[in-house]
Amino acid sequence: QINPQRLWDSLMETAKIGGTPKGGICRLTLTDHDRRVRDWFRAECETLGCTVTVDEVGNMFAVRPGRRADVLPVAMGSHLDTQPTGGKFDGVLGVLGGLEVLRTLNDTGYETNAPLMLVNWTNEEGSRFAPAMLASGVYAGVFDRAFADSRQDRDGVTFGEALEAIGYRGEAKAGSVKFGAMFELHIEQGPILEAEEKAIGVVQGVQGMRWYEVNLTGREAHTGSTPMTLRRNALVGAARLVERVDRIAHAHAPSAVGTVGLMEVKPNSRNVIPGHVFFTVDFRHPNDAVLDEMEKAFFAAVEEVASALKLESDAGKIWESPAVRFDADCIAAVRSATERAGLPARDMVSGAGHDAAYIARVAPTTMIFVPCAGGLSHNEEESTSFDECAAGAQVLLGAVLDYDRR
Amino acid sequence: QINPQRLWDSLMETAKIGGTPKGGICRLTLTDHDRRVRDWFRAECETLGCTVTVDEVGNMFAVRPGRRADVLPVAMGSHLDTQPTGGKFDGVLGVLGGLEVLRTLNDTGYETNAPLMLVNWTNEEGSRFAPAMLASGVYAGVFDRAFADSRQDRDGVTFGEALEAIGYRGEAKAGSVKFGAMFELHIEQGPILEAEEKAIGVVQGVQGMRWYEVNLTGREAHTGSTPMTLRRNALVGAARLVERVDRIAHAHAPSAVGTVGLMEVKPNSRNVIPGHVFFTVDFRHPNDAVLDEMEKAFFAAVEEVASALKLESDAGKIWESPAVRFDADCIAAVRSATERAGLPARDMVSGAGHDAAYIARVAPTTMIFVPCAGGLSHNEEESTSFDECAAGAQVLLGAVLDYDRR
Ligand SMILES: NC(=O)NCCC(=O)O
Ligand SMILES: NC(=O)NCCC(=O)O
Repeated sequence: QINPQRLWDSLMETAKIGGTPKGGICRLTLTDHDRRVRDWFRAECETLGCTVTVDEVGNMFAVRPGRRADVLPVAMGSHLDTQPTGGKFDGVLGVLGGLEVLRTLNDTGYETNAPLMLVNWTNEEGSRFAPAMLASGVYAGVFDRAFADSRQDRDGVTFGEALEAIGYRGEAKAGSVKFGAMFELHIEQGPILEAEEKAIGVVQGVQGMRWYEVNLTGREAHTGSTPMTLRRNALVGAARLVERVDRIAHAHAPSAVGTVGLMEVKPNSRNVIPGHVFFTVDFRHPNDAVLDEMEKAFFAAVEEVASALKLESDAGKIWESPAVRFDADCIAAVRSATERAGLPARDMVSGAGHDAAYIARVAPTTMIFVPCAGGLSHNEEESTSFDECAAGAQVLLGAVLDYDRR
Repeated sequence: QINPQRLWDSLMETAKIGGTPKGGICRLTLTDHDRRVRDWFRAECETLGCTVTVDEVGNMFAVRPGRRADVLPVAMGSHLDTQPTGGKFDGVLGVLGGLEVLRTLNDTGYETNAPLMLVNWTNEEGSRFAPAMLASGVYAGVFDRAFADSRQDRDGVTFGEALEAIGYRGEAKAGSVKFGAMFELHIEQGPILEAEEKAIGVVQGVQGMRWYEVNLTGREAHTGSTPMTLRRNALVGAARLVERVDRIAHAHAPSAVGTVGLMEVKPNSRNVIPGHVFFTVDFRHPNDAVLDEMEKAFFAAVEEVASALKLESDAGKIWESPAVRFDADCIAAVRSATERAGLPARDMVSGAGHDAAYIARVAPTTMIFVPCAGGLSHNEEESTSFDECAAGAQVLLGAVLDYDRR
């Protein structure tokens, strides 16, 4: 039995690192706040007698020895970075839930067969450095280290520079710190569990997701003295494409989603016709073939809108994470832990991306979801209750021990 | 006869203060670049034997004495601030053209009846601090000093703080430094003179202009796990309104213009549904009654779009500058100077706002326009030729002397 109060206290304690006035967390990856929470995490793991290894992209691996040294560890893991206006649970619950599992086993002196491992993956959010799940992606061989190092934030700082600035460039080669399976506890970030009053989501996989970047270039000119017919207004083009992204997603209802989340206008002055707009697009669907259609419709829309407005356009896909199916044995371990805990559960597919999606390529993997109020995430008001957090950590403990026993 | 080479050299010399790699100027009002060009301007005027007075909102007045001390000065003036990606002529030509007039009169020892005055108005552009023509507005009694002081840039720095930071808060009360008339030389910033091969625009007035600010608030949420039907996406709302502003202007063709020039998205993260968007609107038309209609249509659009998307909206007019007609005597002086110089000219109304529009409320005022290539302004490629600049300064000289002789 995990200790729910200790878990909650750790959630609230670390929430202060980058805590916002509205009760959320702003702890962008590889910032000084991220360094502080990493330092805290390392110290807590070491207090438990774990060895902490950091790899070359900043992923942190804490190991608690098992009875046998000849089997690979069973891992738990998620991420401690957040969105700029993130909540207190997204990612953090999976890491601190795993920490609570280790603390509980230490309290009772329980010895597992395999070693247990707890991982903090770097830059899961993808908000500061795109794409998301960057360092679990390097771990899984989807990206190489040079690619990760070269990613730039909107101020031009690279991932590599930021990693070194906070002192978390480790010695271990990415992918060299092996484990035999991984379980990721996470909040659902969607409305289903709450609506159906289920405590646990038994996650079957992750939907496909694709990210795009678009540059539209028109011509800066005076808003007062430039006739409408002589304009090349990049923001009118961007506006039409925001609407198109929305319509493309609605056209593939109910499973498709499509969003423009980031937009930068230049020169961004009230009396200058915008000469340049940069924006991003996020499309998701459980079926990669539907994503192909959405992508085709979007690229066609860019061409059409740009040509109607005499804009230059440069649109490209910067990331694609195909739909993922999780491992049947791992899922079975979660299901049986859920049943033993007597918690109402349902199977589901994740709408959000997770480190588990990449790890599933190199090790048996699955996830455990718990509800969040109103399905709200990537929002400072994100809220999962004391009991919901506790239930998730309990199922994580049960699943890990179940898997270990096999 | 003015000295065209000296005028051009001064234009090119000051263009280095805030000069951009693309050949433009980034000299936002009350920045350190603005301070440097002000220091240069003061020194040049003092070299000519002028007395320079600075008023409480940073307007600079250089006076060259005339034969009579009992008549008010005849003023020339424009502005030395620029857009973030401004050109080398917008505003600057009017100030340096006036400086060339003073230099020419000094060279020949010409004594005017009235004193001559050369003014550099603060924050004409309105890009850093809205609205435009802020300090000529304070001079003319349209705004009070406290209002000007309180205006904030997008980083929250106030006009008053910035003015003091560069050391240009003068002693003189705004409006206390009187003149009897003002002539403003400026580039047209539109395509008409070039298209009709006219060297000079005899400006009859300025069209009406109105600025609005809009805040749309939805709800931040995860782009992957939030179904389309549960979203409150503030950027979709803003996109629809950008399109509406464009359509409202087209609906009042050909004279109306409408633009969203500035937009800020929050939290501006690729995988967060935008929870908040701030944007500005600029509407202009020579007829204030048409602006009333455009405004009504726009506010109705805000209501409609916000309610369809379940957004909260807060839209307000922050500035209104009604259509202006310039003074007949001043216009006559420009017309006769143009004829004496043998330059092809046409009457026109200004599409851009100018300090002259506010000064016209308190003194006889008019403007002289010269062409700019492709009508392009508020763009680093803004271009007016050596001969075009010279023609403008020559007409400015002629008009001022003509007015002085009456
Ligand atoms: N779980 C989560 O919020 N991940 C961020 C990556 C994404 O799904 O956009
Ligand atoms: N002339 C000029 O560019 N003025 C700036 C104010 C405006 O017209 O927007």
